[in-house]
Amino acid sequence: MGPWGKRSDMVVHEREPFNAEPPRAALAEQRITPVDAFYSRNHGPVPRIDPARWRLRVDGLVEHPLELGLGELRDRFEEVEAAATLQCAGNRRAGLAAVRAIPGEDPWGPCATGTARWTGARLRDVLAAAGLRPGAAHIAFSAPDVSALAEPPQPYGGSVPVGKALGAEVLLAWAMDGQPLPRAHGAPLRAVVPGWIGARSVKWLTAVTALSEPSDNYFQATSYHLLPAGTDPGRAAPGSGIPLGPIALNCDILRPDDGARLPAGPVRITGYAFAGEDRTVARVDVSLDRGRSWCQAALDEAENPWVWQHWRTTLELPPGETEITARAWDSTGALMPESPAQLWNPKGYANNAWARIRVTAR
Amino acid sequence: MGPWGKRSDMVVHEREPFNAEPPRAALAEQRITPVDAFYSRNHGPVPRIDPARWRLRVDGLVEHPLELGLGELRDRFEEVEAAATLQCAGNRRAGLAAVRAIPGEDPWGPCATGTARWTGARLRDVLAAAGLRPGAAHIAFSAPDVSALAEPPQPYGGSVPVGKALGAEVLLAWAMDGQPLPRAHGAPLRAVVPGWIGARSVKWLTAVTALSEPSDNYFQATSYHLLPAGTDPGRAAPGSGIPLGPIALNCDILRPDDGARLPAGPVRITGYAFAGEDRTVARVDVSLDRGRSWCQAALDEAENPWVWQHWRTTLELPPGETEITARAWDSTGALMPESPAQLWNPKGYANNAWARIRVTAR
Repeated sequence: MGPWGKRSDMVVHEREPFNAEPPRAALAEQRITPVDAFYSRNHGPVPRIDPARWRLRVDGLVEHPLELGLGELRDRFEEVEAAATLQCAGNRRAGLAAVRAIPGEDPWGPCATGTARWTGARLRDVLAAAGLRPGAAHIAFSAPDVSALAEPPQPYGGSVPVGKALGAEVLLAWAMDGQPLPRAHGAPLRAVVPGWIGARSVKWLTAVTALSEPSDNYFQATSYHLLPAGTDPGRAAPGSGIPLGPIALNCDILRPDDGARLPAGPVRITGYAFAGEDRTVARVDVSLDRGRSWCQAALDEAENPWVWQHWRTTLELPPGETEITARAWDSTGALMPESPAQLWNPKGYANNAWARIRVTAR
Repeated sequence: MGPWGKRSDMVVHEREPFNAEPPRAALAEQRITPVDAFYSRNHGPVPRIDPARWRLRVDGLVEHPLELGLGELRDRFEEVEAAATLQCAGNRRAGLAAVRAIPGEDPWGPCATGTARWTGARLRDVLAAAGLRPGAAHIAFSAPDVSALAEPPQPYGGSVPVGKALGAEVLLAWAMDGQPLPRAHGAPLRAVVPGWIGARSVKWLTAVTALSEPSDNYFQATSYHLLPAGTDPGRAAPGSGIPLGPIALNCDILRPDDGARLPAGPVRITGYAFAGEDRTVARVDVSLDRGRSWCQAALDEAENPWVWQHWRTTLELPPGETEITARAWDSTGALMPESPAQLWNPKGYANNAWARIRVTAR
C-alpha cells in the first residue's frame, strides 16, 4: 500500500503536499471509484484534527452564527447520501504541458478525477438554520491546511456563489462510500460541491462564512483563474483571468493504457466523460484515424447530473501504431475542442481537448 | 421596407414560410436589436389571429385548467420586462454547408439571432395559478401555424422540462421593445424561453400543457435533434440524436462584413458572443493569423445571463487578404471548437465553430 492508504501504483506527483492520481486502469468501468484509487490534491500538509475538539463555525452574514460539533451536525440536519464526481481543475494538464512547459505545476494525467458516494448534510439546510442575511452573495469555506504555495502563505480556502451553495447537491460530508471520511480526504468534514472544480470542495472544513463578495483567499482570488496564453502568471494582476467554477465538458480514455502493446484485432476501448454543473454527456465518439471518421461509443446514463458517465466500444485495431481519439458532446450539443495547443494557458487548467492515446498492435 | 415590416436589405432565405435574417451590420454594436432587423424563423404560414377571440388554454397535468384572454392574462399576473436573446438552432449553418451540402435546410448566416426587451407574465406564475399536478415533468407549447415540413404535417409546437419552465426568466410575452408583439413575431402571445434554442420560444401561443413526457410534436420529438455525421436524417429512428435545448457557447463577427474591402491600417472589429442557459461569456479572442496568435477583445458585461454580449477590438490590418478569426470562452473556461468540419451534422444545427471572415485591404 502507498502513502495515505492509496494503491501502491498511484502516480505520485508530490509527496509533500501529497498529490497523486491512480493509473487509468484503476478507474476503468467503475462508476464508483475505490477510495484507495481516489486522487489526492493537496496544497499543504494534511492536518491532524482531533474530532472531539473540532467545531464547524457558520458565520458572516447570518442571523444566528452557529458552532457545531460533528454529532450536533449529524443530529440536527437530515442525512443525505449522493454520488458525485470530483475533478481537479488541473486534470489532464499533461496534455497542455506537452505543448509547452508549465513550470511549477504538477503534470496531472487524466485520473485527477473520481466518483464517490458522499454522506452528509445539505449545506443549504445548515445555512437555513443560520439564516442568511440580505447581501449574502457568496459562501466561503475555510480550512486549517496552511499552504506555502499561496502568496502570502495562508490556510486553504475558497467560495461559491450563494446560488450554487443553496443547490440541493452541495453537501457538508462526513462519509465517503459509507465509511467515515479518511484523513487524507478531509476528516472530519469536507465540502462537496458537485459539478464545480475540485478546488471548491474544501477539505478539513472549519468554517462556512456568508460574504457579500467572493472569498479573498489566494486559491479563490488569484489561483484557479484561467489566464490568456501570453500572460506571465507571476506578473498578472491579482484576480485577472477567468475564475474557474463549473467544470467544462471533458472525457478521457481509461483502457487500453497510453502506450499499450496489444494484439491486432478487436480491442475494447473504455473511458469516462463528464460535464459540469447540471449538464450531462449526450454522446461520445471514438476514432482510430485521428478524427477523419468516428464511431459512437455506448454511453452509461448519468445516475444524476453530478456524476461522470462511462463509455465503451470495441473497434478493430490494425497492426502498427494507432492513435485512439475520443471526444464527448454534452446535452446542449456542444463538442469538446480539438487541440490542446489552442487551450494552452500558463497555469495549465481546464484541458478538455479531445483525448488521445497511442497503442501498438501486432 | 421588406416583407413583414423588415428592413429591405434582409437576407430572405424563404418567402413562404418567411425565413430571413439581417445583414451583419444591422446587428453590430446594438445590445437591443431593432424589431425591423430581428430574424424571422417560421415553419409555416404566419397565422392571422383575432385578438378578441383568442384564448390561451392552460391544461394537462394541472389542478385547475385555465382559459385566459389577453386582458385577463395581463390583469391577473405580474407584468415583467426583461431583455433576452433568441438564437435559432440553425444560426451559422452556412459554415457547415460550406463543408458539405445540407439539403433542405436554409443556409443561415450568423444573424439568425437577436435581442429584445420582452414584456409579459412569468410562465411560472401562470403555472402556479393552474397548479401543477405530481408527474408534470414537461411543459408543452401549442400554436396554430401548420407546417408542411413536419411528418405528418401538423401545427408547430414544442416543450421544455418543467425545471426550465419554472425559471423566472421564462415569459409569456405580449410586447417586444415596448410595442405590442408584431404579427410576424407571434401576436398576440408567444413563449420566450431565454438561453434555449429559438425553436422553444413558440409564437402565436394557444395552449400551455403540462405533460409527463416531452411533447410528441414533430419539432420536439424528431426535428431539432443533432444527429451523428454519418446518419441519413430521412432514415434515422424518430427521436434519435441529441435533442437540442440550451444553446451552446457561440460568437460571430458583425463588422467588418465578410468579403469587405478596406484600407490597410487600424480596423475596428466587433461582434457578438452568447452562452446559453445561465452561462455567460468570459473572454473573446481575435486573430489575424488563423489562430497562431490572439488578441483579447473588450467585452461588454452581460446585463443578465440571458443576453448576448458585444465585443470589439482594433487591430492593424496588413495589405492583402486577411482571414479574421474570433472565438469565445465561457464562464466555465470552455472554448468554442475550432473546425466546422468536426461539427458537421446532417441537419446543420448548432454550429459554434470559431467565426471566420475574409477581408481585403490595400
